Amino acid sequence: MDFRFPPADDTHRIDVSRLDMPPRILLGPGPSNYHPRVSLALAMNEVGHLDPSFIELMNENQELLRYVWQTGNPFTIPVSGTGSAAMEATVANCVEPGDVVLIGCNGYFGERLCDMASRYGADVRRIERPWGEVFDDAEIAEALDIHKPAILGIIHGETSTGAAQPMDGIGKICREFDCLLLLDTVTSLGGAPVFLDRWHVDLAYSGSQKCLSCPPGISPLTIGPRAWEKINRRKSPVPNWYLDMTMVGKYWGKERTYHHTAPINMNYALREALALIAEEGLEKRWDRHAQNASVLWDGLSDLGIDCLVERRFRLPSLTTACVPDGIDPKAVCSYLLENYNIEIAGAFGPLAGKVWRIGLMGFNSRLENVTLLLAALKDALESA
Amino acid sequence: MDFRFPPADDTHRIDVSRLDMPPRILLGPGPSNYHPRVSLALAMNEVGHLDPSFIELMNENQELLRYVWQTGNPFTIPVSGTGSAAMEATVANCVEPGDVVLIGCNGYFGERLCDMASRYGADVRRIERPWGEVFDDAEIAEALDIHKPAILGIIHGETSTGAAQPMDGIGKICREFDCLLLLDTVTSLGGAPVFLDRWHVDLAYSGSQKCLSCPPGISPLTIGPRAWEKINRRKSPVPNWYLDMTMVGKYWGKERTYHHTAPINMNYALREALALIAEEGLEKRWDRHAQNASVLWDGLSDLGIDCLVERRFRLPSLTTACVPDGIDPKAVCSYLLENYNIEIAGAFGPLAGKVWRIGLMGFNSRLENVTLLLAALKDALESA
Repeated sequence: MDFRFPPADDTHRIDVSRLDMPPRILLGPGPSNYHPRVSLALAMNEVGHLDPSFIELMNENQELLRYVWQTGNPFTIPVSGTGSAAMEATVANCVEPGDVVLIGCNGYFGERLCDMASRYGADVRRIERPWGEVFDDAEIAEALDIHKPAILGIIHGETSTGAAQPMDGIGKICREFDCLLLLDTVTSLGGAPVFLDRWHVDLAYSGSQKCLSCPPGISPLTIGPRAWEKINRRKSPVPNWYLDMTMVGKYWGKERTYHHTAPINMNYALREALALIAEEGLEKRWDRHAQNASVLWDGLSDLGIDCLVERRFRLPSLTTACVPDGIDPKAVCSYLLENYNIEIAGAFGPLAGKVWRIGLMGFNSRLENVTLLLAALKDALESA
Repeated sequence: MDFRFPPADDTHRIDVSRLDMPPRILLGPGPSNYHPRVSLALAMNEVGHLDPSFIELMNENQELLRYVWQTGNPFTIPVSGTGSAAMEATVANCVEPGDVVLIGCNGYFGERLCDMASRYGADVRRIERPWGEVFDDAEIAEALDIHKPAILGIIHGETSTGAAQPMDGIGKICREFDCLLLLDTVTSLGGAPVFLDRWHVDLAYSGSQKCLSCPPGISPLTIGPRAWEKINRRKSPVPNWYLDMTMVGKYWGKERTYHHTAPINMNYALREALALIAEEGLEKRWDRHAQNASVLWDGLSDLGIDCLVERRFRLPSLTTACVPDGIDPKAVCSYLLENYNIEIAGAFGPLAGKVWRIGLMGFNSRLENVTLLLAALKDALESA
């Protein structure tokens, strides 16, 4: 090429300072903080996306994801984007125009699934519960009988409400109605019991930055054999190139065919985060989340703060705490951030202004965090 | 939720060793190695995606991207995925079913644009040149006159061929035909002169892991005012939720409305990589790439190796070197990897088995790398 060029314009050539982010304790709905080993893994030197050493790491990530999800699905991979990308991948690959898709709407993420499915031409039907509640098997069965959907989409851990959907019965009901079961495990995976195969789940997705305690930027996806049967019967190509798992699968499968450059360092970080889970063991990890959640709930009660969700349906990883009368919820969030470097979050939709969302996710589900948060919250309420 | 649970299945609970990737020198088509400061930035502690400190960093990344692209486009952001995601974002947002889209096909990435555009319902037309060649203004003007496209897609730096498309005239011709100009700058941005506004480019995308020398997992995207006019006239929603820039733009714009959780650490890394470019200055950086490319080309010639692309149309960041008769190209790649930890790559499509692709990208465009590569290549050829 011709190496002569006109001068560059320096209008946008800003001089930035040294990168220095505040030492936040992330006790909101995600991201969570990660173990120092994850940080070291993230900074490991780069290799190519077809390097033999990276291919070995890919296999390890797939195997470890099967463990945390309790599934034997061969197609279990991390998608090269944040949780919403894996969420969309389930819909983009499995939905064909005209398919009836029934979505459980009891929070924001059910609504988002409706939006996504409709963009792929689904005939979206809804089954609704107020935000903070969960569905029972009988109403799911009734809705399947009425709508005869090809896919039922359910949110296991609703990040917007803190509710955990009981999953023991739904999968069997879906099989009876010859319907695929799609499950959102964004806020539950690695923090609450998830048994994909036992629950007969056909498609699931998650995020890295919640209970896996890995930075955001990579997102677990698994597709079971019944869902693959539907994908393989598609009459048209997947209408999304980046998330077309018939192509991405050839990179993560035996062929190792280039599709796009995988996020190398995010895969390093995910491997370390998953290795930490395998070392701890799922049962111990679930117990830890349950214990710390109990301490939080009892402590909130002592402060006169109610929880939105009925105790038996609460996520151990995310609690929606009701804002007491006369308290400005945003002012409390700002107070905690400015005085304690603690991030908790408000809510949106019908819960806006009514609850705080408090996360005790993965590495962050530790007694020192609960104790500090309760003390800081007491201070914030007294200062309000 | 009920905290009793059945025991977890340990089939996939593998015990992984300490993460230890080989110290590769990445002189292929990307990823490239990054400056140690980028690695430190990547490992910085996490903050939330709506933290005031992160919002400040977002603004800095947008401003620095404007500098490297030489554009004043307000909508200039890093997409939360690898380069292919930003590529698809241009098409997903701008193409409506039935739009005539003309693509310059002179390598793999033009073909990919055709695939993507057809998935969004475009009436795809092609203008072709053999792999390794570039288009001249007259044939572009003729093709615009014949096809009257809504969008012309051109690859500035063809990663599959090493050709650099001259861009001085095409934008003006597009304006005459009232056609949007979409430009792939994946392998050129930060390594060769790119002047988006001067060239009248309406949409462009890039990757982080080439001449920006940042890990893969985040990808620059810019959309100019003429392209926004077309997007704002859409009759249907963008049929891709994750890449819907009418929504993503509200997170990167003044509203700061949550869309998806941004890849926080990848944004740290990108900021550091872009800061390094602003410190060096674009002119010095372009000169450095040109100088080192010249040394490489002369050295290859001394080894009796021709370059595929005519010298005046060569990318300084990526060289396609012709495999001499009787040499097994894959064996040479393996020899370099195993003996020198150097990654170079072969090619695909019509160039498979015929050329190696050698990258001198960003931080890696240094005399020590060129000198080592030439010596190692000489050794590999003598050992073959």
